[in-house]
Amino acid sequence: MTAASLHDDAIVIDGLIISNWSRDVFEDMRRGGLTAANCTCSVWEGFTDTMRNIARWKEWFRAHGDLICQVRTTDDIRRAKEDGRTGIILGFQNVSAFEDDLGYIELFKDVGVGIVQMAYNTQNFVGSGCYETRDSGLSDFGREVVAEMNRVGILCDLSHVGSRTSREVIEASEKPVAYSHCLPAGLKAHPRNKTDEELRFIAERGGFVGVTMFPPFLPKGPDSTVDDYVAAIDYVTNIVGEDAVGVGTDFTQGQPPEFYDWLVHDKGRARKLTDFGTIRNPDGIATIGDFPNLTAAMERAGWPERRIRGVMGENWLRLLGDVWG
Amino acid sequence: MTAASLHDDAIVIDGLIISNWSRDVFEDMRRGGLTAANCTCSVWEGFTDTMRNIARWKEWFRAHGDLICQVRTTDDIRRAKEDGRTGIILGFQNVSAFEDDLGYIELFKDVGVGIVQMAYNTQNFVGSGCYETRDSGLSDFGREVVAEMNRVGILCDLSHVGSRTSREVIEASEKPVAYSHCLPAGLKAHPRNKTDEELRFIAERGGFVGVTMFPPFLPKGPDSTVDDYVAAIDYVTNIVGEDAVGVGTDFTQGQPPEFYDWLVHDKGRARKLTDFGTIRNPDGIATIGDFPNLTAAMERAGWPERRIRGVMGENWLRLLGDVWG
Repeated sequence: MTAASLHDDAIVIDGLIISNWSRDVFEDMRRGGLTAANCTCSVWEGFTDTMRNIARWKEWFRAHGDLICQVRTTDDIRRAKEDGRTGIILGFQNVSAFEDDLGYIELFKDVGVGIVQMAYNTQNFVGSGCYETRDSGLSDFGREVVAEMNRVGILCDLSHVGSRTSREVIEASEKPVAYSHCLPAGLKAHPRNKTDEELRFIAERGGFVGVTMFPPFLPKGPDSTVDDYVAAIDYVTNIVGEDAVGVGTDFTQGQPPEFYDWLVHDKGRARKLTDFGTIRNPDGIATIGDFPNLTAAMERAGWPERRIRGVMGENWLRLLGDVWG
Repeated sequence: MTAASLHDDAIVIDGLIISNWSRDVFEDMRRGGLTAANCTCSVWEGFTDTMRNIARWKEWFRAHGDLICQVRTTDDIRRAKEDGRTGIILGFQNVSAFEDDLGYIELFKDVGVGIVQMAYNTQNFVGSGCYETRDSGLSDFGREVVAEMNRVGILCDLSHVGSRTSREVIEASEKPVAYSHCLPAGLKAHPRNKTDEELRFIAERGGFVGVTMFPPFLPKGPDSTVDDYVAAIDYVTNIVGEDAVGVGTDFTQGQPPEFYDWLVHDKGRARKLTDFGTIRNPDGIATIGDFPNLTAAMERAGWPERRIRGVMGENWLRLLGDVWG
């Protein structure tokens, strides 16, 4: 099978996209042959603003129903593949939308939220983010949040979560959890990157690692290529095993400068946490539409078909099935 | 079949209950043999407070899962009957929770809302209530709300809606609509009661009438009996036909005086709209647990079994199936 036909045939799941949603982006998802993607619809927003964001998604599902559809189950994802549409998994990068009410978690599950990150960069009611000076660990309320997410079937994501909080979520959760989009600190030291020990810890407890290609976290930064991205996935695979790895690009396609400003300030407007510098996606995978080049790069690297299919989507599919039930 | 065994065997649906929710009330629903009920979870509340009310309902579904369960489809209602539990249809008595956002309507459908009244006593963004001095009719936004409710499958309820707005909703809706809980003005003149002409108008267009027993609207007021309630259902049946009639008690079981104060003031705190006087439920049907007495009263009135089964629940079930799809 050629790389192109393998890509066309494969289940392709992106574990994190936070683009500036528009028909252009949805068309690019189709060009890229994306079967499904975890699409961020809340970062700093509270309950009501997040619900409003989701209402906008529902409108997009209708307005662009030829390109995308909402997915809540792995059967929905398989149907999206058959229909030639991209399945949208609504996801949060923070628990801010849960506010102080555990009861909100089931409401979000009802409207289609399938993945939620336990903290975004800083401390919240649940735990600490990876830019927090001191990681307080998983709070008592956080333990209730994890249990409730387990119960209703929402995946706990730990990508931007602090090390101690991550470890405690991994231990507290009765269902597998994930770093949906991270890179190994073994390739580049960075507060967002995960040490070999952290990667091993999550994998040994049934967890999952989606590897990102966000250039500021790659060793060569803006000079990276799609082959460097594959090398990073390789590095992670050697630690966690080939069935526990997937892709989580962190495509920020079409986002204006104000968006990054909002992201890198605590709560969108408090102190500045980091400076991404130049964001230029790895050569060969500049936009979502270039996704087939990633499969081709895996073939170039000599990966067998089974492994490619696993990393491109089937591993994600299995994990989501385990968590969503 | 005796009245008791007919009641036990029948699908029993109450088109409106607005009680002070508690385990006592849920136990009484079981004593009454209720298969399902439209339970009010929003009257004057906006989006967020209503979502919070629904989150509380989700907790009750778990805490009292031996007595009640959430129902979203007519299959769910049939399953509740088999399980010996009471199926809860979440319903609103106002569109205040939709606020200014048509997109919220699908979110409420997702979390389980199946019936929404277009106005509660006064004017809102959609139209006018039955205590508004001048009924402005269905607004342009209101037409969008009706279309969206039709699309997602939420029943339009008109019980507390003004005459002109009701007529225009009946004409605008592509799916059947209902007065979920009303009495005939032909038995007692009252702003909340519907004229023969109004009852005929909704029925001729495929609509439905749930008959209430709220004593202030019955001719004998607090001196009414369950037989007077059956006589009122009889009166409505003679106008709309026996397949378009059901029950919508308006049980306010356990509600404190402050609750009625909140109900009878516009938006819960503006001008006072009405005074209910003494509320004493009809003799023989004081609480939800007395529901079997209603079936017995229908038998006393000489109604054939088919008609009793229809009015007690099967007519509601057919209507909800048509609207929910």
